[in-house]
Amino acid sequence: MKDRHVSEAVIRRLPKYYRQLQELKKQGIERISSGELSVKMGLNASQIRQDFNCFGGFGQQGYGYQVSSLLKEIGSILGLDQRYKVILVGAGHIGQALTSYSGFARQGFDIVAAFDNDERLIGRQLDVATVRPIGEIAEFLTQNRVDIGIIATPKEVANEICELLTKGGVSAIWNFAPVDVSSENVIVENVHLSDSLYVLSFRLNQLRAED
Amino acid sequence: MKDRHVSEAVIRRLPKYYRQLQELKKQGIERISSGELSVKMGLNASQIRQDFNCFGGFGQQGYGYQVSSLLKEIGSILGLDQRYKVILVGAGHIGQALTSYSGFARQGFDIVAAFDNDERLIGRQLDVATVRPIGEIAEFLTQNRVDIGIIATPKEVANEICELLTKGGVSAIWNFAPVDVSSENVIVENVHLSDSLYVLSFRLNQLRAED
Repeated sequence: MKDRHVSEAVIRRLPKYYRQLQELKKQGIERISSGELSVKMGLNASQIRQDFNCFGGFGQQGYGYQVSSLLKEIGSILGLDQRYKVILVGAGHIGQALTSYSGFARQGFDIVAAFDNDERLIGRQLDVATVRPIGEIAEFLTQNRVDIGIIATPKEVANEICELLTKGGVSAIWNFAPVDVSSENVIVENVHLSDSLYVLSFRLNQLRAED
Repeated sequence: MKDRHVSEAVIRRLPKYYRQLQELKKQGIERISSGELSVKMGLNASQIRQDFNCFGGFGQQGYGYQVSSLLKEIGSILGLDQRYKVILVGAGHIGQALTSYSGFARQGFDIVAAFDNDERLIGRQLDVATVRPIGEIAEFLTQNRVDIGIIATPKEVANEICELLTKGGVSAIWNFAPVDVSSENVIVENVHLSDSLYVLSFRLNQLRAED
């Protein structure tokens, strides 16, 4: 199932397939053709078949895909059949929004600790953990294996926190600070909320230009 | 400058170019070749030249791109040289995180009103607006032209809010509820935070499979 040559574009489409299949399953749809899936996803059918072929292909000619087994396969490729220990650094609005979203725990991501340097937040009981002082991160990491660190701090300290987490053995960083962080030997996803806002304004202006 | 045939992939890369160029400008870099830009962005140079050619091309053979003028051009293509009136529906953690991020106003997006149905939030003064009851949205929209509506509500009501905003003349929806919303005649960006988390878990598992 592992393929080292899966392109970035295919990887980015996998979560979208996963969400679409979850939705189909919820609607009680048991089987779907690549053609029907292509309409729902706004991709062309041969693209979808090609994507799935990267992982050995899941369909049967003329039969389509079985929704629940395809969902399970893609979930497994995405590693969603496993559990992850997650810590949150920065317990402001974004951090609290993430900890209060129950979907992450359902999907295998357990937030086991939260840290902040704001005295008003330290000691506060969030949905999943009590906020501890940032100074305790290093010690926490010597005592606990952590897979993913969420950075939801101001941008000024984000890279410093990224270094601290990486040194402590965290394997992956999910960064919401509005600056790209990086470090050797760590997997990083920098989330840029404004990117989708800029796509909105691009389309708004296309629309206005037509009027 | 307007081109109806710009592909989705190119549109999605524009904000990334914009961010990269902002960063270069901040670093005081005045000129950059497509080769240097390609290294910084993890794209190949011919891809970059092709992308820019969709908009008429900005470079000069053997000279490279002038950072500040390219930044201005791409900003203008993205519509970031204009201002937008934005309302927020749902003033919970995500909503408050968005209103307290000063970068949006700097970039031309002015949050002019916020709405929620939670009695504890109504009347609260956020950084940009006082939270009003959701029941006042329709009237607000008859009296104010609004370009963009942010939906940061629970998923159960997101589509209903989307309809309400569209009927009130809002042109674009930036949706953070974990369900896709849609409506005729409205531009929608559905933000799926979990997509990037799933890419993280995919890469974590690739790494583990190598060990």
